[in-house]
Amino acid sequence: MARPIVTLLSDFGTDDYYVAAMKAVLLRTCPECHLIDITHSIAPQDIVAGSVQLERAVASFLPGTVHLAVVDPGVGSERRILVAQAEGQTVVCPDNGLITWTARRFPRSEIYELTWRPPRHSRTFHGRDILAPAAGALAAGGKFSELTGLLSSPVLLDIHVAQESPGKVIHIDHFGNATTNVPSSILVPGAEISVAGRHLGALKRTYSDVRANEPIALIGSSDLLEIAVNTGSAARELGLKIGDQVEWR
Amino acid sequence: MARPIVTLLSDFGTDDYYVAAMKAVLLRTCPECHLIDITHSIAPQDIVAGSVQLERAVASFLPGTVHLAVVDPGVGSERRILVAQAEGQTVVCPDNGLITWTARRFPRSEIYELTWRPPRHSRTFHGRDILAPAAGALAAGGKFSELTGLLSSPVLLDIHVAQESPGKVIHIDHFGNATTNVPSSILVPGAEISVAGRHLGALKRTYSDVRANEPIALIGSSDLLEIAVNTGSAARELGLKIGDQVEWR
Amino acid sequence: MARPIVTLLSDFGTDDYYVAAMKAVLLRTCPECHLIDITHSIAPQDIVAGSVQLERAVASFLPGTVHLAVVDPGVGSERRILVAQAEGQTVVCPDNGLITWTARRFPRSEIYELTWRPPRHSRTFHGRDILAPAAGALAAGGKFSELTGLLSSPVLLDIHVAQESPGKVIHIDHFGNATTNVPSSILVPGAEISVAGRHLGALKRTYSDVRANEPIALIGSSDLLEIAVNTGSAARELGLKIGDQVEWR
Repeated sequence: MARPIVTLLSDFGTDDYYVAAMKAVLLRTCPECHLIDITHSIAPQDIVAGSVQLERAVASFLPGTVHLAVVDPGVGSERRILVAQAEGQTVVCPDNGLITWTARRFPRSEIYELTWRPPRHSRTFHGRDILAPAAGALAAGGKFSELTGLLSSPVLLDIHVAQESPGKVIHIDHFGNATTNVPSSILVPGAEISVAGRHLGALKRTYSDVRANEPIALIGSSDLLEIAVNTGSAARELGLKIGDQVEWR
Repeated sequence: MARPIVTLLSDFGTDDYYVAAMKAVLLRTCPECHLIDITHSIAPQDIVAGSVQLERAVASFLPGTVHLAVVDPGVGSERRILVAQAEGQTVVCPDNGLITWTARRFPRSEIYELTWRPPRHSRTFHGRDILAPAAGALAAGGKFSELTGLLSSPVLLDIHVAQESPGKVIHIDHFGNATTNVPSSILVPGAEISVAGRHLGALKRTYSDVRANEPIALIGSSDLLEIAVNTGSAARELGLKIGDQVEWR
Repeated sequence: MARPIVTLLSDFGTDDYYVAAMKAVLLRTCPECHLIDITHSIAPQDIVAGSVQLERAVASFLPGTVHLAVVDPGVGSERRILVAQAEGQTVVCPDNGLITWTARRFPRSEIYELTWRPPRHSRTFHGRDILAPAAGALAAGGKFSELTGLLSSPVLLDIHVAQESPGKVIHIDHFGNATTNVPSSILVPGAEISVAGRHLGALKRTYSDVRANEPIALIGSSDLLEIAVNTGSAARELGLKIGDQVEWR
């Protein structure tokens, strides 16, 4: 049998030992697992950004994968911890909205509460003390029903998959490409796209369909409408930011 | 038997191939080992910061783990290389003070000299050429006594676990939280805390025990006194920096 | 048999899920492989910088290793993808010059075209959809001849191993050390070195052969002439940059 995979996503950065502390716990409970970092560069406590990246993790991996996601401004408080099932995969994260974009794009997801708690744990680092051992146990084949219970009304943020124009920018990536909440399925071939009031012409297929430094609208690798500048940065050159409106017809 | 774990800590950054070059060597000598990065973002040649993070690595992992730590301004010179045993784990690092905080917090640590040398090695990258093969050999079960010898007076820096007030800030983390050298064991419940001349009130339990953007003193995940700002940055909002005094009564 | 090793090098940064998406694919096709990051901090679309780091990856690992390198401004266009054999290792990368420095330093390298394509793939993320599954298949023992074909005239950049003075700076590392294209084999012991018009004296052996904050010329860990400042940054203190001339006699 293939070794289990556990991914990690957080706002911990990589300057401190925090990510390694979670990995140490994961390897105790699941010594054979592959540990894969999604990113630890979510801006501190930016749950929306974490939510968008977490959905990408679920979209990338195969059934059986466990995703540990920790963006957790409410650590130590009474906020709940949830365990979600999406696409045959398992997500362990705080119940603060981090699951939102996964739940939106995989609407058949099921969300439970993590009821398991260790005998002792810190009040400041639940990622290490509660979420990581739970994720490791689940990756190692621990019984889901013994760790979880029903969860009524998980916290969900006000971000949605667009059903009609306008949509909005939900993520700016490392290259300055802007991902929107507009799925490819609602765009007709040749749709005319505008962003932040600027007309970009018809939907294209890949960056090099326009000349260098020209803006372009295309379907990105997330299967969502993306605004880019060929060999440049749409964020910088078009001044795009999270929340900017995108329109099509 | 579980696969051996080797952690890596350095000031190499992640822009260059240097960390991968050490991992290549580790996988030659210990092909089955898990490789876990602690951090490679120690400021160039900042031995104190490396020392604080290295202790956290030892505190996080189980007996049997090997830690390879390279912050090494004296590379190529006659500085010694040491191998320490702490908490059933092994640390391989230059003898330049990097072991200090581990030795302070785990006073039963034993420190030896790495006497093994490869037949040939560069003068500029001992991390790859000497420390990594030694760490890999130890992780793979190599005989400690054949690689090491007695070491008299290892280099130790002037940082200590506080015994009485005042203590000081020894680390600022990614969130702007300030870790001090004050262990929880010497603080009574409800102790009154001041930092850099500012009174913070009684010791609390977790960030959300104060309102958003308010400062707080609590015991952090290192089991040391920590100064934070709930959902904010103590470093930025209180102007804290390494060396600032913290007082309690 | 030792587990296969696949390394990853890109300009994707570590803020997004892109690297993890490639790892997800690699683990599907090669579930037992070790995944080792070289760097993902190549400046966006900086093929020269990627080329220099890629050669270092090949120089660091053992025969059998597969290197997946993606700096790919032409993604989605008709640019070819190549598979190179160098030092018993395999490189999979776009045919845009990224292989140049590997081909220069290992002139017995053989370069083929990746002819395999998956049934479907995106137009914007060939790293995930074409290069990663090919790299994983090769690491898992897939037949080279079934995936590749002959390639005439791969794209090669205008960077060369220096044969005579002057050479030039080809890389600035995290410490501010400047690597040149001058191999140790053409420098006589005691050679007198100048960079950017400044005389540095005779070639030394290691950083501490000069006093702190003094400039030094030495053979670095790449076996190339390197310009450094002991415990300082040559880039900052000597104002060095990529392309600066270095002379010796």
